[in-house]
Amino acid sequence: MKDIKALRIVLVGAGNLATQLGAAFVKQGVTIVQVYSKTEANARTLAEKLGCDYTAELSKIQCNADIYIYAVKDAVLSDLVGVIDAPKAWHLHTAGSVSMDVFSGKRERYGVFYPLQTFSKSREVTFDTIPICIEAVNDEGLELLHALGSSISENVYEVNSAQRSKLHLAAVFTCNFTNRMYAIAHDIVRENDLPFDLLLPLIEETARKVQTMLPADAQTGPAIRYDRNVIEKHVEMLADDRLKDLYRLISENIHEAYFIKKQNTNN
Amino acid sequence: MKDIKALRIVLVGAGNLATQLGAAFVKQGVTIVQVYSKTEANARTLAEKLGCDYTAELSKIQCNADIYIYAVKDAVLSDLVGVIDAPKAWHLHTAGSVSMDVFSGKRERYGVFYPLQTFSKSREVTFDTIPICIEAVNDEGLELLHALGSSISENVYEVNSAQRSKLHLAAVFTCNFTNRMYAIAHDIVRENDLPFDLLLPLIEETARKVQTMLPADAQTGPAIRYDRNVIEKHVEMLADDRLKDLYRLISENIHEAYFIKKQNTNN
Repeated sequence: MKDIKALRIVLVGAGNLATQLGAAFVKQGVTIVQVYSKTEANARTLAEKLGCDYTAELSKIQCNADIYIYAVKDAVLSDLVGVIDAPKAWHLHTAGSVSMDVFSGKRERYGVFYPLQTFSKSREVTFDTIPICIEAVNDEGLELLHALGSSISENVYEVNSAQRSKLHLAAVFTCNFTNRMYAIAHDIVRENDLPFDLLLPLIEETARKVQTMLPADAQTGPAIRYDRNVIEKHVEMLADDRLKDLYRLISENIHEAYFIKKQNTNN
Repeated sequence: MKDIKALRIVLVGAGNLATQLGAAFVKQGVTIVQVYSKTEANARTLAEKLGCDYTAELSKIQCNADIYIYAVKDAVLSDLVGVIDAPKAWHLHTAGSVSMDVFSGKRERYGVFYPLQTFSKSREVTFDTIPICIEAVNDEGLELLHALGSSISENVYEVNSAQRSKLHLAAVFTCNFTNRMYAIAHDIVRENDLPFDLLLPLIEETARKVQTMLPADAQTGPAIRYDRNVIEKHVEMLADDRLKDLYRLISENIHEAYFIKKQNTNN
């Protein structure tokens, strides 16, 4: 296995993921030599945290690094992958929904390093148990990515581009959409002079339940039996028409899933 | 304060909530004397757990208890509240969306005991931190409900019927709808031969984030900037038309909320 700590890494990007990933690497003694961001202030902030060089100019990205990790918006990625003058280095992107083929024809050594987690700049995360989904153009790359992943997490999985895009879709439901449900609830309680804290044990337990139960078995609430009384009362209470639609749509979806589940159990 | 342990309680209902609530009371030395359920097997199962009497006949419910706790479906509640021949006892319901007035004219002493949590029969919950929302027709009732709530939880709140119905609405979003997001994600990964376990750290962290951050600040993902590329790819991947609608609707809702938040920050 490669000695990961002997390698030099450049972070292309200084957003939420680059920030947390960089911190995790540095904590484990992996060397980040430079941070690039087109926004100089962001590059500088992260570089200061990591104790390394930074630049806001593509032409000044160091050419002698061993690994370039692209942690930028999907839309920017395809424009960047061919730019850096480092033909012998490994080029890795971190995007859930972008195929590894984005590098094809532009790079010789490439792969994907996708940590399946939600990252915010201000909140440090423990990488130990975060699944790192890796993919590489060849076995040498896979070996490198296993070593790189293992340096920060116990859970490194080989996942191909097609699977990763499904995984990303699933992550949008479990994380982004779930968080929006929290936010809608937050608005409801605050508008009624109730503390959001009242909901925190419920949020925790709902997440904890599915660590050991199937989500389908953990489902509770008025939508299961489509309790029209409660549902119509709730829809009425929501001020926003789109929230009304959302409430109805998810409730119908729960009811339908529960109905199918019951039929399957009875057969 | 009343000595709660000297009182005799009858549980009207033997579902998820009655099961967990009964277990919590008995654990703290509070006396359940009887369980009623129209389904005898359910009444017996719970009564055996709690070491008490049971019945499936309304006319055989003990008349000499001090407190009757109704943990039944909302639709059934209004039919039951006037039935038991115990005019001097306290009658409490546990429903988020039913006003305390359901007892009005039928009972003299009544109130609401609403534990804000998701309950499944098979999963024991720790009541210590569960918010218990109480409401009573008079001060004597409030005192009793404070004592009853405090016997199983540190968090007892006085919440009126109007607030409680909003709280229940918020709970549907944070718990029932969130769990449905988990279930949809579960279907997606299983259909693609990926283990659901891959998503567990993400589920945990998403729930943990909002214990200290505002949900609006914790939001991540493609919907924030309405990344059309990813969103359309995801919508295409979903097989079910209603799931496509759901994906679009929540994404638009996230985008809109983020846009409003940004404008407020800039002003």
